[in-house]
Amino acid sequence: MPAALDCSTLAAPSAASELPTRIVGILGGMGPAAGADFVRLFVQACADRMQQCGQAVNDQTFPEHWLMQVPVPDRTQALSSADDAPLEAMARALGRLETVGVCAVAMACNTAHAWHDELQARIPLIELLHMPREVVAYLRALRLREVGLLATQGTYRTGLYEAALAQAGITCHLPYEAERETLMRGIYDGVKTGDMAYAQSCFVDVAQRLIGRHGDVPLIMGCTEIPLTLTSAPQAAKWTLVNPAQVLAQALASRAYAG
Amino acid sequence: MPAALDCSTLAAPSAASELPTRIVGILGGMGPAAGADFVRLFVQACADRMQQCGQAVNDQTFPEHWLMQVPVPDRTQALSSADDAPLEAMARALGRLETVGVCAVAMACNTAHAWHDELQARIPLIELLHMPREVVAYLRALRLREVGLLATQGTYRTGLYEAALAQAGITCHLPYEAERETLMRGIYDGVKTGDMAYAQSCFVDVAQRLIGRHGDVPLIMGCTEIPLTLTSAPQAAKWTLVNPAQVLAQALASRAYAG
Repeated sequence: MPAALDCSTLAAPSAASELPTRIVGILGGMGPAAGADFVRLFVQACADRMQQCGQAVNDQTFPEHWLMQVPVPDRTQALSSADDAPLEAMARALGRLETVGVCAVAMACNTAHAWHDELQARIPLIELLHMPREVVAYLRALRLREVGLLATQGTYRTGLYEAALAQAGITCHLPYEAERETLMRGIYDGVKTGDMAYAQSCFVDVAQRLIGRHGDVPLIMGCTEIPLTLTSAPQAAKWTLVNPAQVLAQALASRAYAG
Repeated sequence: MPAALDCSTLAAPSAASELPTRIVGILGGMGPAAGADFVRLFVQACADRMQQCGQAVNDQTFPEHWLMQVPVPDRTQALSSADDAPLEAMARALGRLETVGVCAVAMACNTAHAWHDELQARIPLIELLHMPREVVAYLRALRLREVGLLATQGTYRTGLYEAALAQAGITCHLPYEAERETLMRGIYDGVKTGDMAYAQSCFVDVAQRLIGRHGDVPLIMGCTEIPLTLTSAPQAAKWTLVNPAQVLAQALASRAYAG
């Protein structure tokens, strides 16, 4: 996926100068493997950005960034019972990230964005990026008109992606209820417990069914744990997969270099 | 690599109980890709530990952990000119990690351990793990008598591994000077700038030469950027590679669960 990069918004770089940077943060732990992978994507996005702006890439030219991985109550479970426990845990965590001086934070969990606006209101001095909105902006820039959405039951319940996609005029195809349960098993009994082979088989199964019904539409991997195994599936080589974590990592890199 | 795990030192777990956890930190940025990979290894080490202790693995049972990736002046360059700039940058960073409440910190850079004892003296209330010492303890537990060492010029200059290995009675084979320069090119012109194919070719070349001279000895990948490409090389499938970052991640997980 190419980074939508506009170097003109940054201080003009030269071979000798360094892009100005700001401290950014990542709120992870939802789950921890996805949080670790988000850092990898962010580091790659920073390197891409520096290369595209003609700056040398070395340890010292990366922006300072923090990852906080903290236990947060299950988001999908909370949404099914109108429980705000994740909100309180995430608000406390963001307050602690604020103390280290971050100017912007990305949350490495799609479902967590159900509480985005309330969290943003609690930390008005920090920009809290919004993953589904960043993804929709990215899809619009590519002029995509139709997608499929793989996500958690919590994310489907919030309609986070569906609403933003509809507003942008992009048709969104959803899996059937039984297929959504298959995705949940892949996430909870697969990735979250370390059984990656099982996770992959669940994700591939649902992706194949969506493509079977709707043709070769791009698939949004709308849970940060889905790309951890789906992208390496042999069947996926032919599919167009959109990784919201990668899009969000690029957005966070843009904030880190917006001196 | 198996984790040397002793559940007897932990509170007796049951299916219903959770292992007690403590907050731990990771000082990265040296380079950032290696720091990101260290979090992945730490998360895996935590999952392994929970599974081996019979505890359910889910988002909420992982210990809180922080990764701080901050620009630190080049370690090898500083060691060649008796410059303490990395020490000051790392001491400041550790002081900031201290404020978030970590009880133990791992540094995701072998060469940085040249300053380990001075850094530990500056943060007496936090345990600063020592990567080469953890690796030697691991090799002793496996009763290995002979290894090869792939590292930066800075790490060779400090003799960090050689001294600890000699004390444990383990023979350490080193690359010739020209081969060490090949490793440096793989690290600096390869991994640190994102050219992973070039990095891999450099690391494979030196590994093959060491094995050619000394037989099929285990190779310590004594720079956190070497495993990022060497472990996936087809040639490496036949070799015994020791990843100090993985050993250190397991050690950090043991601190995180030592309630």
